[in-house]
This record gives sequence, structure tokens and C-alpha cells, in this order.
Amino acid sequence: MSNNTPESRPNDSCNAQCQHALSHIKVVMIQTSHTGNMGAAARAMKVMGLSQLTLVQPKSLPDEQALAMSSNASDILDNAVVVDSLAEAIADCHLVVGTSARQGRSLRWDIKDSRSCGALIANHVQNHQAPVAILFGRESSGLSNEELALCQHLVHIPTNLDYSSLNIASAVQILAYECRLALLELNQMGQAVVPEPIADEDKSVTADELNGYFEHLKQVMLEVEFLDPKNPRYLMPRLRRLYARSGVTRSELNILRGMLAAIQKKL
Amino acid sequence: MSNNTPESRPNDSCNAQCQHALSHIKVVMIQTSHTGNMGAAARAMKVMGLSQLTLVQPKSLPDEQALAMSSNASDILDNAVVVDSLAEAIADCHLVVGTSARQGRSLRWDIKDSRSCGALIANHVQNHQAPVAILFGRESSGLSNEELALCQHLVHIPTNLDYSSLNIASAVQILAYECRLALLELNQMGQAVVPEPIADEDKSVTADELNGYFEHLKQVMLEVEFLDPKNPRYLMPRLRRLYARSGVTRSELNILRGMLAAIQKKL
Repeated sequence: MSNNTPESRPNDSCNAQCQHALSHIKVVMIQTSHTGNMGAAARAMKVMGLSQLTLVQPKSLPDEQALAMSSNASDILDNAVVVDSLAEAIADCHLVVGTSARQGRSLRWDIKDSRSCGALIANHVQNHQAPVAILFGRESSGLSNEELALCQHLVHIPTNLDYSSLNIASAVQILAYECRLALLELNQMGQAVVPEPIADEDKSVTADELNGYFEHLKQVMLEVEFLDPKNPRYLMPRLRRLYARSGVTRSELNILRGMLAAIQKKL
Repeated sequence: MSNNTPESRPNDSCNAQCQHALSHIKVVMIQTSHTGNMGAAARAMKVMGLSQLTLVQPKSLPDEQALAMSSNASDILDNAVVVDSLAEAIADCHLVVGTSARQGRSLRWDIKDSRSCGALIANHVQNHQAPVAILFGRESSGLSNEELALCQHLVHIPTNLDYSSLNIASAVQILAYECRLALLELNQMGQAVVPEPIADEDKSVTADELNGYFEHLKQVMLEVEFLDPKNPRYLMPRLRRLYARSGVTRSELNILRGMLAAIQKKL
């Protein structure tokens, strides 16, 4: 616990490095129904220093209601990127985290609580200076299994088991807050003020690069008739999940791609 | 930082003791203008397991808009206590924390950040099993100096210095979340599962008891003409602040009251 004297208390001073790190965090809202939630999310982001909002297939584009709820965070709505697919939204992201109402189920994911997720993201953006996406699903039904398969981690906000109806903008608020506090702490601790340089080959690949691999893999699986297009049996989502969890580096991806190419050549 | 394996990750299981502790936390909204904010605050509370809402001089009583924003947390609105004064709202509270947009100013308060405030409140409600109030001021202007003088601590949520427009329900959300996480942590750590019994005389007094003292003190100050009713010069608020900060215990209050009585007797 932090010392409580005013002098040593964590303060708001998010220096240039902290601000730059926050600018790498992308909030991705998928098929959001209520434009008011987009506005409230924009406000929640801005108050914590986040700026990048991506809307995947929104039911409506931000409107008067969104503007009213944004309370002068309209710049974030104005600059919001609207895309047709989640793959497009996260193409440049090195880390993809999906929000989930699940906790402790026997899923094959590392489900993090919101606090350790904030620390994970803060470390990533500060050390890698590379885009990270936090995915927020539909107000009613969250993220689909296909969308979850694109995530390296799932994050769960601990809520009342008897009433877990967390508003989507409130979820954005809590995760943005956790990311900010974790970055303030990192910068106060003087950690990573000079980030360790990471060799390109040891960097995690982008979602787009990973997607390229899966397309390649799928092609090979079809060629070897392991994947039956008439009865795919969740093969590809399962493989996606496996690799997404591991955080594949560029050198590893090169190996994987090389293996596929070698198989194809042999066929 | 917590270990990230699913087994050791903090989970949502807020046991009976944790739930009981949460029931002691009172959210006090002062002169709230927008009923929608009351509803959103009720939802934010319930999702974190809080239940007690007090409205001090609300501009309007909870209405359709509040209900719409509460998303089935209408029980909290229905059970909300509406009072005419802050003193009434906090009369039974042993710890009063005021939310503030200020940080690091040269105020005479211990301004806590939201995380350490959550830990403070969690420890208090778990160990003392006694009411605690978190005060939320007006949407536009926050808490007045007179209201701040009734607080033992101020809490500040670290926000973007360039845009600190945190929605009031979002502030409720973050503090309720911090209280919940701190209580989950306390209970997981097994701390205070059997709370140390605190002797009555060592318990902090209620706001009402403290108020009784101030009335007494004021009377004496008037009697000795230290307090000029025509020119009070913030004397009483300053004294209130002094004592509020210290968290007066019952045995101390008895001494203070005894001193006043002795002075009066001598006069």
C-alpha cells in the first residue's frame, strides 16, 4: 500500500513518456448499440488520458446523444476510426485483450483481473511503444467466440455475482483507470524510463501478421485434408486461440511460416 | 502484483463477511442536478456490491430518467434516503471521506489517492463494522468548504490534467470498485477474518457526536467572546477541519467535552 503523506502519494503527473505510452492504447467497441455509450466511453477514456477509439460495425455512427454524453471529449468521437471487421481494427496491435464477464471458467485463456491487466498493458505500451487493443463487446452479449479467439488475454472486472450488469462505458472507465494508474506507478518507480531495447525478432507480432499465418495454416490444413470445409469442427478457432495465448514473436512466426512453406513445397 | 495463474488470481467471491462489510459503505450525493446520474450511480454501486445511497437536497427526486439509467438497480433508488442536510446524512458515520478534484494543494487534509482510499475504507468497514460515508459533490462545483470540513479524509482520483471532467457516476464506479477490490484482497489474505475487538472508548466517534462537540465548543467560544458572531472569520470550520482530520475517539471526545464543561462551570 502506498504511503499516505501528501509528498509520497502517487500524483497525477503523467509525464511525456506516460502520455505517449497511453496514446498506444486503443479502445475497440464492437457493434455497440447505444451511441450514448460511445460518448460516455469517449469521456471515460479522455479523463484517463486515452485517445484512440475504434468502432467495429457500430449500429449507428456517433450522433447528438453520443456528443451529449461525451462532455467535451468530442475530439475522441471525431477521430474515432470506424471499421467493418475486428481483424481490421486490431491489425496493427501487438497485444489484444478482450473484456469478459466470465471468471474462473475452464476456458483455455489466461483470464486476468482488471488490476493485473492494467499492469500488463502498462508494461507493454511503455516498453514496446506499440499498439495494444482492449476489446469491448456488445452491450447485450459481449464478445463472440470468434472474437475471443483473436485475444491473447481475457480480462474480467470483479463484480457482484448477484448483479454483474456493468455498463460498457463504466468498464471502459475502470480499465482506462487501471492502465493510467499502472503507468503512473511505473513512471514513479523509475522503471523502464529507459526501456530495454527489444530486438525486432523478439517482438510479438501484430494481429495482422498472425492472421496471415492462420490463412497460410488453413490453406495447408485444407491441402492435407485435415480441415474439412464441410465440417470444420472449430479447428481454426482452436488453433487461433492456442497461438493467440502464447504471444508469438516475429522470429517464431518466421519459423512457423517456414514450416508451412516447407510442407507445401513437399506436397 | 498478483500472480496470474487462474488458481491464484483474485476472484469475485465476496463471502458473507465481505458482503456485510460492503453494506456499511454509504454513497452520499449532494445536490445532484441530473437524476440520470443518480440512476447510473445506483447501477455502479450495485455492480460492486454497495447498497446504501443517500441523497442530500437533490434537485429532483429519482424519476424515469434515473430508473432508465439504473438498469435494474432500482432497489437502490427505491431505498435511497433523502435528507435535508449533510450533517443528517453522515450522523451515524465513523469515517467520512470527501471526493475532490484537488490534488497536492496545500490544504490541511490528507488527500488520498483512490487506491489507498479504497484500502482505508475496506479496513475500516471490515474491522469496525461501522458506517462509512463517501461524499460526492455537485456535478458542477463539487463539495463546498463547509462540507469538506466534515470530512476526515479527501480522496482524489488521478485524472488527465488537461481534461479532468470525470462523470459523477464514474467517480462512484471507481471508488466502489476500489472498495470492493480492497475487501476481496483483505478477505483473500485472511486478514481480519476474526476482527480484533476494539474497545468502545477507542472507536472513532460518529459525525453526530463530533457535531455535538462543535456545538458545545462554539457555545463556549461565544461565551468567552473568542468567536465574534458578527465576524466569525472561519473559526469554526477551521476547528472542525482540525478535529475531523484526527479521527477523534470516544474517550478523547469525553475529555474534550469534559474540558468544555469545566470551562463553562468556571465561567
